[in-house]
Amino acid sequence: MKTYLDCIPCFFKQALFAARVVLDDEEKIKQVLDRIGMLVSEIPLHSSPPETGREIYRTVREVTGVDDPFAGLKAESIEKVLSLYPSLKEMVEISEEPLETAVKLAVAGNIIDFGANPDFQLEQDIQESLRKEPAINHYEAFKNKLEGASEILYLADNAGETVFDRILIEVMAKPVIYAVRDRPVINDATVKDAIESGLDKVAKVVSSGCDAPGVILKRCSEEFLDHFKSADLIISKGQGNYETLSSEQRPIFYLLKTKCSIVARDLGVNQGDTVIKYALRGN
Amino acid sequence: MKTYLDCIPCFFKQALFAARVVLDDEEKIKQVLDRIGMLVSEIPLHSSPPETGREIYRTVREVTGVDDPFAGLKAESIEKVLSLYPSLKEMVEISEEPLETAVKLAVAGNIIDFGANPDFQLEQDIQESLRKEPAINHYEAFKNKLEGASEILYLADNAGETVFDRILIEVMAKPVIYAVRDRPVINDATVKDAIESGLDKVAKVVSSGCDAPGVILKRCSEEFLDHFKSADLIISKGQGNYETLSSEQRPIFYLLKTKCSIVARDLGVNQGDTVIKYALRGN
Repeated sequence: MKTYLDCIPCFFKQALFAARVVLDDEEKIKQVLDRIGMLVSEIPLHSSPPETGREIYRTVREVTGVDDPFAGLKAESIEKVLSLYPSLKEMVEISEEPLETAVKLAVAGNIIDFGANPDFQLEQDIQESLRKEPAINHYEAFKNKLEGASEILYLADNAGETVFDRILIEVMAKPVIYAVRDRPVINDATVKDAIESGLDKVAKVVSSGCDAPGVILKRCSEEFLDHFKSADLIISKGQGNYETLSSEQRPIFYLLKTKCSIVARDLGVNQGDTVIKYALRGN
Repeated sequence: MKTYLDCIPCFFKQALFAARVVLDDEEKIKQVLDRIGMLVSEIPLHSSPPETGREIYRTVREVTGVDDPFAGLKAESIEKVLSLYPSLKEMVEISEEPLETAVKLAVAGNIIDFGANPDFQLEQDIQESLRKEPAINHYEAFKNKLEGASEILYLADNAGETVFDRILIEVMAKPVIYAVRDRPVINDATVKDAIESGLDKVAKVVSSGCDAPGVILKRCSEEFLDHFKSADLIISKGQGNYETLSSEQRPIFYLLKTKCSIVARDLGVNQGDTVIKYALRGN
């Protein structure tokens, strides 16, 4: 997905939120925005938003001097969802179609996002996401594809959401490569966050090699690209991964909750809708 | 009111909206945002938002080459509210307290704003504003002050809202100086817009001498400043005028609908609330 002009005000909003997580000196925070102001003319509209997001959050790190502004919020999210794990797991197990419930839960868990939507209410939003039907629902295709899949690549998004991913991986009961960001960016999961969420018990956790809030293939490691090319099923979580991969012709299932109007429009759905979309099929 | 850091993403949003009113070439529109990006580091947080708004809309004019991007929308708003004039006038006349109804209508009409809140639904929002009580309500003080007032200065805000102002001025039945922006900025009323709304029939229409979306005293004409200093009652419409005048110790009544969370917070009310606030009194 390309960068829309509407993404530009949002970059400032996100930078401001991130800077405020670690600073309370208004003048110092403004320096972050000043620096991002200088970046605007260098944003190519043909690139995906996470390409710019990468620069934005690098600027936040440089000006604040804090390498992982969201470390505390990430730890809290993981702890919170781990505490819900037994009840979520039970919800899946007693449901008529455990795989479908686990997929829907994994989509619902995508609400944890301190970039596009920091005002989420975890438990309330999850219940709401579970109640409504996905606006694009390729679950049947997912179920069929999964049956024959032997090499599954799972592209993680946010810390905490990782625990929902773990539940889905447990239900899938297949070997999974779980790929995370190479270094902290927003509240996206890194190897450390994945391990703290227990993903290492159910999958092989790897770094994508990329430090953007998405999967920018040209910035990924050779090891990751090998997985990306050979996987016969790819599960891509969240907006950032969709934004960077939406034009790829690979067997990708995008599992996400649309948290901004721009991604929603790109997908042809409404903001707030949930989506289970197969890349190799139409809507 | 000072500029809050949250105003900065909003400046980009407003510039984008304004540029899109007259352009549909994305690359050209991006040039507006590029230029505003360069301005960020020059925004002093101690100045009021309309100081920067002035620069933002000047940039929009320069890059688009259109002196009054909102001319069409302004004419539409005026025409629309003029068509409602007979029914609004009747609503006031048959009400138990015509002055109070006219004040509330004047506040409700402040919803017409293509800067802070371009997604308004005129008739629906007006009905809603009339239904709810103002979060700050110094109407009794206004009524008392008006009784003894002989020199009234009325600071206009948006084109179209002007027609609501006219109804209030008709009910007040006192000599009024009606001050508007010196040149087009957002959809704020100019002398032309005031005359098209019929204000010249009920007040003396003057320019403030200032081309910002607010009243920046140091940029106002001597003639306007004389009125500002000598008036025994000043009615200030909208957020921009509040933002520029909120620390002035003059007999000002701020009549507005809060359309952004920042102004709402500054006033100690909720976004969407209506306000009738007397500057020389507490909340």
